[in-house]
Amino acid sequence: MTKLAIGIDIGGTNAKFGIADREGNILAQSRVKTQQFTDYKTFLRTLKTEIEKIHSIDNAIGIGIGAPNANFYSGTIENPPNLPWKGISKFTEEAEHVFGLKCALTNDANAAALGEMVYGNAKEMKDFIVLTVGTGLGSGIVVNGELVYGRHGFAGELGHTLVNANGRFCACGKRGCLETYVSATGIRRTVYKLLADYTEPSILRAISFDDLSTRTITEAAEKGDKIAIEAFKYTGRVLGMKLADFVVHTDPEAIFLLGGLANAGKHIFTPAQENMERYMMPLFLDKKIQLLPSGLKDDDAPILGASSLVWKYLDN
Amino acid sequence: MTKLAIGIDIGGTNAKFGIADREGNILAQSRVKTQQFTDYKTFLRTLKTEIEKIHSIDNAIGIGIGAPNANFYSGTIENPPNLPWKGISKFTEEAEHVFGLKCALTNDANAAALGEMVYGNAKEMKDFIVLTVGTGLGSGIVVNGELVYGRHGFAGELGHTLVNANGRFCACGKRGCLETYVSATGIRRTVYKLLADYTEPSILRAISFDDLSTRTITEAAEKGDKIAIEAFKYTGRVLGMKLADFVVHTDPEAIFLLGGLANAGKHIFTPAQENMERYMMPLFLDKKIQLLPSGLKDDDAPILGASSLVWKYLDN
Repeated sequence: MTKLAIGIDIGGTNAKFGIADREGNILAQSRVKTQQFTDYKTFLRTLKTEIEKIHSIDNAIGIGIGAPNANFYSGTIENPPNLPWKGISKFTEEAEHVFGLKCALTNDANAAALGEMVYGNAKEMKDFIVLTVGTGLGSGIVVNGELVYGRHGFAGELGHTLVNANGRFCACGKRGCLETYVSATGIRRTVYKLLADYTEPSILRAISFDDLSTRTITEAAEKGDKIAIEAFKYTGRVLGMKLADFVVHTDPEAIFLLGGLANAGKHIFTPAQENMERYMMPLFLDKKIQLLPSGLKDDDAPILGASSLVWKYLDN
Repeated sequence: MTKLAIGIDIGGTNAKFGIADREGNILAQSRVKTQQFTDYKTFLRTLKTEIEKIHSIDNAIGIGIGAPNANFYSGTIENPPNLPWKGISKFTEEAEHVFGLKCALTNDANAAALGEMVYGNAKEMKDFIVLTVGTGLGSGIVVNGELVYGRHGFAGELGHTLVNANGRFCACGKRGCLETYVSATGIRRTVYKLLADYTEPSILRAISFDDLSTRTITEAAEKGDKIAIEAFKYTGRVLGMKLADFVVHTDPEAIFLLGGLANAGKHIFTPAQENMERYMMPLFLDKKIQLLPSGLKDDDAPILGASSLVWKYLDN
């Protein structure tokens, strides 16, 4: 009887769920729209029904959940700005009640880091950082083979390190946070700034802010669009400068870039790596710290990240 | 028979050494001038003779050494800019040979962090950061009760995080590093910048750069000298902004400020704490992360920091 793990990744738009074995084979997966659930208890009950539609959970030994504003220590999701339920949800307690299985919960970026360590490109690594660059910029920091949670469970909020004290307004309430520059939203803001500052013709002038996506900007850059190219250079420079700062904190072997913006490939990786080295403390230069893509397929990564929590914390 | 530990703190000016028990009582201590030794083997042999002059080492179970550019993993001191011997020294190997005792070596700021955890104000803490603000700015990061060493043993070089890419030149080869602003040298540079920019009369106009010290600047601030007061405000603002960044990395319970600049007390602690909170991600504001002084006496701290390595790593 093969042991299985249920993995659930809760995002602002979709909640992806699946059932996987220890080797990272996903036996079944599906998704539901998150915004239709105004309370998390109904959400979890629906999720159980939906999972059982696609695969038996008889051999499941636990549930791993990655979610924004999730606290590993308390098992709660606290005031998530992008989820439809508000306040503090006792998430693992309710999930264990609904499913009759042990549950481990962590920040979605922490789950991604664990997924990379268990199944992906960080298999041989004990010290690395994962940055998930989607709508925002999340991060998971691994030190000596363990995720860093910190005193209150909120370690690894690198999206909210400071780029410019008088810079762009951030959803967190501060100004000039890294994620206002380096994220799917950040690069759109940069494109609009460049379109405002320069008279250069650009394919992107025909696209509204709402319709603009990293993919559109990448395609424009591929076609030689100067605004798009400059937007990536700028984004990569800001990211690279902060990566140089990150390195002196925990001295990682590698930094992984995951999510929407990472799919722009060389357009973001090249300027980010160059600027990381340009601004890096010379002591670290010969350590060849690499900026790497995920070893997991885009579709699988969220579910494998979440289910890796089961193998890491619940499989005694 | 009480077990004892030998603690050695190697600085650019003095090498302090002593012998202490597990409770942190220093039974004897002394120092030698570091710069008189052009090779580290002679230095270690002299040190053994000097230690034996002040106390028997018969009950010593090991030697702990804190030094700049020290690597915990390899036991080497690598290209220290402020020590008289150059290149890579196989330090623990030689110390074990000379003393006939086990030896553990780490970066001086890491030793300070360990000292604070074993004997000082971090006794009950598992997640904290120590900043040693002397000639430069060193740091030790503790996560879940363990020092963070990182992949290559060089974690915790927070003095070389970036304040301003076009800023002051740093001894490391970069520009705009934190320690060019926040250190005994950094605040002298700030005083000179302010004296150059403003016409304000100041006691400090009578003092050469070489003669200027944190103590002189503190005394001037106590007397209401506007340049001195502004220099502390500026230093505290730069420090506080970076502390806000440090917090989102490892979510510490407290940050300790040790060394020369910390002795300025409220002049540095107040603006640093205020600005840390001003620039902090709101999620962390209610966590009341504190900026604290060391719990160890100035004279004892280096030796206790170094000897705590013995209790942590060598006392099986």
